Amino acid sequence: MFEYKIDEELSLKMIDHQDAEELFDLSDRSRDHIRTWLPWINFTKEVEDTRNYIKMCLRRFAENDGLTVCILYHGKIAGVVDFHEMDKKNNVTSIGYWMGDEYKGRGLLTRACRVLCHYAFEELGMNRIEIRAASKNIKSRGVPERLGFKQEGVIRQAALLYDEYTDHVVYGILKEEWRKKEAHI
Amino acid sequence: MFEYKIDEELSLKMIDHQDAEELFDLSDRSRDHIRTWLPWINFTKEVEDTRNYIKMCLRRFAENDGLTVCILYHGKIAGVVDFHEMDKKNNVTSIGYWMGDEYKGRGLLTRACRVLCHYAFEELGMNRIEIRAASKNIKSRGVPERLGFKQEGVIRQAALLYDEYTDHVVYGILKEEWRKKEAHI
Amino acid sequence: MFEYKIDEELSLKMIDHQDAEELFDLSDRSRDHIRTWLPWINFTKEVEDTRNYIKMCLRRFAENDGLTVCILYHGKIAGVVDFHEMDKKNNVTSIGYWMGDEYKGRGLLTRACRVLCHYAFEELGMNRIEIRAASKNIKSRGVPERLGFKQEGVIRQAALLYDEYTDHVVYGILKEEWRKKEAHI
Amino acid sequence: MFEYKIDEELSLKMIDHQDAEELFDLSDRSRDHIRTWLPWINFTKEVEDTRNYIKMCLRRFAENDGLTVCILYHGKIAGVVDFHEMDKKNNVTSIGYWMGDEYKGRGLLTRACRVLCHYAFEELGMNRIEIRAASKNIKSRGVPERLGFKQEGVIRQAALLYDEYTDHVVYGILKEEWRKKEAHI
Amino acid sequence: MFEYKIDEELSLKMIDHQDAEELFDLSDRSRDHIRTWLPWINFTKEVEDTRNYIKMCLRRFAENDGLTVCILYHGKIAGVVDFHEMDKKNNVTSIGYWMGDEYKGRGLLTRACRVLCHYAFEELGMNRIEIRAASKNIKSRGVPERLGFKQEGVIRQAALLYDEYTDHVVYGILKEEWRKKEAHI
Amino acid sequence: MFEYKIDEELSLKMIDHQDAEELFDLSDRSRDHIRTWLPWINFTKEVEDTRNYIKMCLRRFAENDGLTVCILYHGKIAGVVDFHEMDKKNNVTSIGYWMGDEYKGRGLLTRACRVLCHYAFEELGMNRIEIRAASKNIKSRGVPERLGFKQEGVIRQAALLYDEYTDHVVYGILKEEWRKKEAHI
Repeated sequence: MFEYKIDEELSLKMIDHQDAEELFDLSDRSRDHIRTWLPWINFTKEVEDTRNYIKMCLRRFAENDGLTVCILYHGKIAGVVDFHEMDKKNNVTSIGYWMGDEYKGRGLLTRACRVLCHYAFEELGMNRIEIRAASKNIKSRGVPERLGFKQEGVIRQAALLYDEYTDHVVYGILKEEWRKKEAHI
Repeated sequence: MFEYKIDEELSLKMIDHQDAEELFDLSDRSRDHIRTWLPWINFTKEVEDTRNYIKMCLRRFAENDGLTVCILYHGKIAGVVDFHEMDKKNNVTSIGYWMGDEYKGRGLLTRACRVLCHYAFEELGMNRIEIRAASKNIKSRGVPERLGFKQEGVIRQAALLYDEYTDHVVYGILKEEWRKKEAHI
Repeated sequence: MFEYKIDEELSLKMIDHQDAEELFDLSDRSRDHIRTWLPWINFTKEVEDTRNYIKMCLRRFAENDGLTVCILYHGKIAGVVDFHEMDKKNNVTSIGYWMGDEYKGRGLLTRACRVLCHYAFEELGMNRIEIRAASKNIKSRGVPERLGFKQEGVIRQAALLYDEYTDHVVYGILKEEWRKKEAHI
Repeated sequence: MFEYKIDEELSLKMIDHQDAEELFDLSDRSRDHIRTWLPWINFTKEVEDTRNYIKMCLRRFAENDGLTVCILYHGKIAGVVDFHEMDKKNNVTSIGYWMGDEYKGRGLLTRACRVLCHYAFEELGMNRIEIRAASKNIKSRGVPERLGFKQEGVIRQAALLYDEYTDHVVYGILKEEWRKKEAHI
Repeated sequence: MFEYKIDEELSLKMIDHQDAEELFDLSDRSRDHIRTWLPWINFTKEVEDTRNYIKMCLRRFAENDGLTVCILYHGKIAGVVDFHEMDKKNNVTSIGYWMGDEYKGRGLLTRACRVLCHYAFEELGMNRIEIRAASKNIKSRGVPERLGFKQEGVIRQAALLYDEYTDHVVYGILKEEWRKKEAHI
Repeated sequence: MFEYKIDEELSLKMIDHQDAEELFDLSDRSRDHIRTWLPWINFTKEVEDTRNYIKMCLRRFAENDGLTVCILYHGKIAGVVDFHEMDKKNNVTSIGYWMGDEYKGRGLLTRACRVLCHYAFEELGMNRIEIRAASKNIKSRGVPERLGFKQEGVIRQAALLYDEYTDHVVYGILKEEWRKKEAHI
C-alpha cells in the first residue's frame, strides 16, 4: 500500500507479510543464478521459509536495526534491497541486494539503490554507506561503482562459498561525497 | 519515505522510528483534548515514551498483529489510525484513531479510515472491521457512522475512565456491505 | 484437594496438573458435540495436548490474567468454566465454558456460573462480566439468560467456523444488577 | 474460594493474588521472630514484595514445580507451607513453612503438614518428603519429629545466617512409612 | 589451551566446545558402566547431545553457577568433574564426576578432586563442599572418603534408578577441616 | 586456575568471574589512555560494570561466539585480548585488545596475540583472522604489522569517536600465510 514512486515504471515499498508468495516465486524462478553468490537460496525451499524471512526482516526493522525494501517494476516485485545494519552510534549502514533474473540488465537495481542512498543520508541521518561484493561478482560490483562508491579494500578469503574461500571487495561512500555527486547531476 | 497518497493534501504512511519527535509534539499540543477519552496520553510524558510506543507498534506489525498508520496533511503528521488486532483465523480487525487538535473538523480522519477499510478488505483479506467508541464520544462515533458501519450493540460499563464507568458502542461493517457501498459511489 | 462445595453433588476446583487424564477423557467422549462450536477440540488429540492446555491456564492464572475451574459432579469432572481475561484496569472479565455430554441438561453449568459470578463480583473486585455465545448456539445462550445477563448486542460475522461466518451475541451483567438480583433470591 | 477444610477451625488454600495484603501484614507483624531463621523477611518491605512472591509461587505451580499453601485459622491466614520442589523423576519433594507469631504453639502447623503429606503421597504420587531445619531451630524441628519423619543426617555449615554458618538437620519420610503410621491412627 | 598441570601425566581444563567429539567417544566407550549409576548416558546418543551438554555447562559457568572440568591424562580426556552449583550466599558447592572405563583404578579422579577442592576453598571462596553418592556405589564413595570428607547422613530413597529407589550418602568437608588436613601432608 | 604459559613471565587465561576487581582496577588506572580510542571505558565506572562485562564475555563464549583472554604478567592481569566473533561458517574471526598503561612498550601484547593466532588457526579451525585499528592509533596498528598481517583496506569514517569520524585500517592474515611465517621462525 505504502510506496515510493521513483518513476513511471519503478517504485519501492517496505517488505510486508503479504509479499511472501510473490517474493518466494521470484526467488524460486531465479534460483539457479541466485545460488552462485547467495547460499541462503538453498534454504529457501517453500513459501513458509520466505514468510519467516519477512518476519525476521520486520523484527529487525522494529528494533531499528535494518530495513528491507522490495523493488517494484510495473507493480511486480523485481528484487530486494536491504539495509542490513543501522549503526546509529557511528551512523554507518550497509546495503545488500538481489534481483530476479528477468529484471536484470536494465539498471533497475542501480536506480533503486540511488534512491535508498539518498534516503539513508538525508532522512536516516547516516554518514557512511558500505557495500560488499564478492570480488568475482562483477555484476554486483557494478552497482556501487556506478553510484560513485570508492573501493576501500579487499577482505581476503572473507567467506566460504561452496568449499572455496572468496574475497570481498569493500566499497564505501560518505555523506559529503554523495552530496557533491548529487549536486553535479 | 513510503506513502499512500489519498489526494493533493492527504496521505498515509506506516509509523516509523523517525516520527517520534513530530508525533510526540502533536500529542503534546493536543494533550488536553486527548486525555478526555484516551488515558494513555497521561503516560506519554516525553519523546522517549513515544519512541517506545512506536517500537511496540512495529513489533506488533512484525508479528502480523497490527498496523499503525500516520495521517499526513500537507506532509505533516495530523493523526494516527491503527489496526490494533489482525485476527487471521476469523478475518476480523479493529480500528482505533486520534487526531491532533488543529486537524480536527475537516473530515481528514474519515477520509483516511475509508482508505484503510478498503485496504483491509481488499488487500489484507479481512471480512469484518470493528470500531468501538465511548457512547458519549460523539466525534469519535461520527467516523464509523459516516463510513456506513452498523451499530451492533452497546457494551455497558466497558471501561473505567477517571473513576467513572463508560459504555462502549460497537460498530461493525462486513466486506459485502463495504463493497455494495463502494459500488454506489 | 482445594474445592468449593456448592451443594451435596456439585463443587468447583481450580484446574490442576493432576486433572489431565480425566479432563482429556471427558472432552474425548464428548468430541462430536464439542466440535460444533468449539474448534479447539480438533487440536486436542491426546492427553499431552490437555496437559499443555492446563499449563497454559495455570500460567495465565500466575500472571493474574485468567482462572480456569473444573466443575465436579459427585467428585468427577463434568465441565470447565474459565475467566479468560481479568482486566483489572476496567474491572471487566469474560466467562467461557463447556460441559461433557453426559452432564448436560441438569442445570449444573448454570449453578456453577452463578457461584463464579458471585466470586468475581465479591472477591475479585470485578464490575462487569461478559459472556459471548454464537447466536445459533441456543444451549450456550441459555446460561447468561438464566443468570439475568442482558443482551447488549450482536457482533455480526465475529468468527469463522468451518468456513462459515458466525454471529456472536454479547451478554453483560454489572455488579449492581447482580447484587439486586441476588437480593431477590 | 477453593479450600480444604481440615476441621472446624483449620483449613488450607492455595496461595492467590488476593492474599497479598493479608499475607504481608501477617509477616510484617511477626517480622522479629521470622528474621531469626528466615532472612527473606528482610527483603519483604512492602505489599508489592509479597505480591511478587505470590506471582513467583504461582509460576512455579504452573510449571508443576511447587505448591504454596496458606493455613487458614477461622478464615484468617495464619501461616504458609510450601512444597518447594516437585521432582517427578524421583518422586521426591521438600516442605518448608512459617507461622505468624499469634498462631504459634497450638499445633496448627503440624496438623496442616500432616494433611499436606497425605496429599503428596496419595495424590501427587510422591515417594519421599524431606524437611530441613536449622539444627538450633527447635520449634521447626518439632514438626517433622511429631509427624514421624526420621532424622537422616546433619548437613554441617549448610547455610550462612547473619555471618554465622548454621547446620541443617535433614528429616525424611517414605510413603511406606507414612502409610504404616497412618494405619495406626 | 588453558590448563592446570597437576603433574607429569595429569592435568585439568575447563570443558570447551572443541571437546565434544572426544568427550562423546569416551562416554560412548564406557556406556555400559556409566549407565549403572548415571542415567543421563541413555540420552547421550550422538555427538550433538554432548555438544548441547557442553553448551549447557558453559551457560551455567557464565551465570556463575557451575564449573565443568575435564581430567586430561597424557593429554587425553579421561573423565569429568563438575561443580554443579555455586551457592555464593552460603559458600556451598557440590561435586559430581565420572571416569572413562580405561582410566579407572589409578587414583586419577581422587587426585583431580583434591586439586579442585583446593581451588574451591582457596580461590572461589567456598566454605563447604558436598559430594553425594548412591550408597551402593562403592567406587564413587571412595573419592570423598579418601579426601577426608565426613559422612553426614543417608538420604533414603533419594532417587529412582531404573524403577528402584536408591539411597544417597551425603559427604561434606569444611574449609577449616580441609586446611588442617592439607597442613598435615 | 587454568592457564597457558607462554614463557617465564607471560601467560594467558580465559576471563573469569573472579577477575572483576583486578580487571576493573587495571582499566581504572589506565582510564586516561584507554578513553582515547575505546569509549567503553567511559561506561565502566565501578566493579559492577566489569562484572557485567565478564558475564557478557562468558555468555558469548557459551554460545561459541567469542573468547576473552587475560594476559598475565608475573601472575597479574596486564591486558585483555578477545576474539569478538567466531564465524564458523566462514572460519573467520576478529581480534581486539587493550593493555594497562604500566604494561605497555614491552611487546607483551604482540607475544600474546601470536599465541592466540596460533590457537585460532590450529585449534579452533579458523582460516582468517582480522584486526581493525583506527588509522591514527599507531600503537594498535603495530600489533598486526609485527605479526605479519597484511593491510587490506581503509574503511573511511567507520566510527564516530567523540564527535569526529575516524578511519579504520583493516588487517587480515590467512592460515596459509601464518603457517609459512611460522615455519620461518
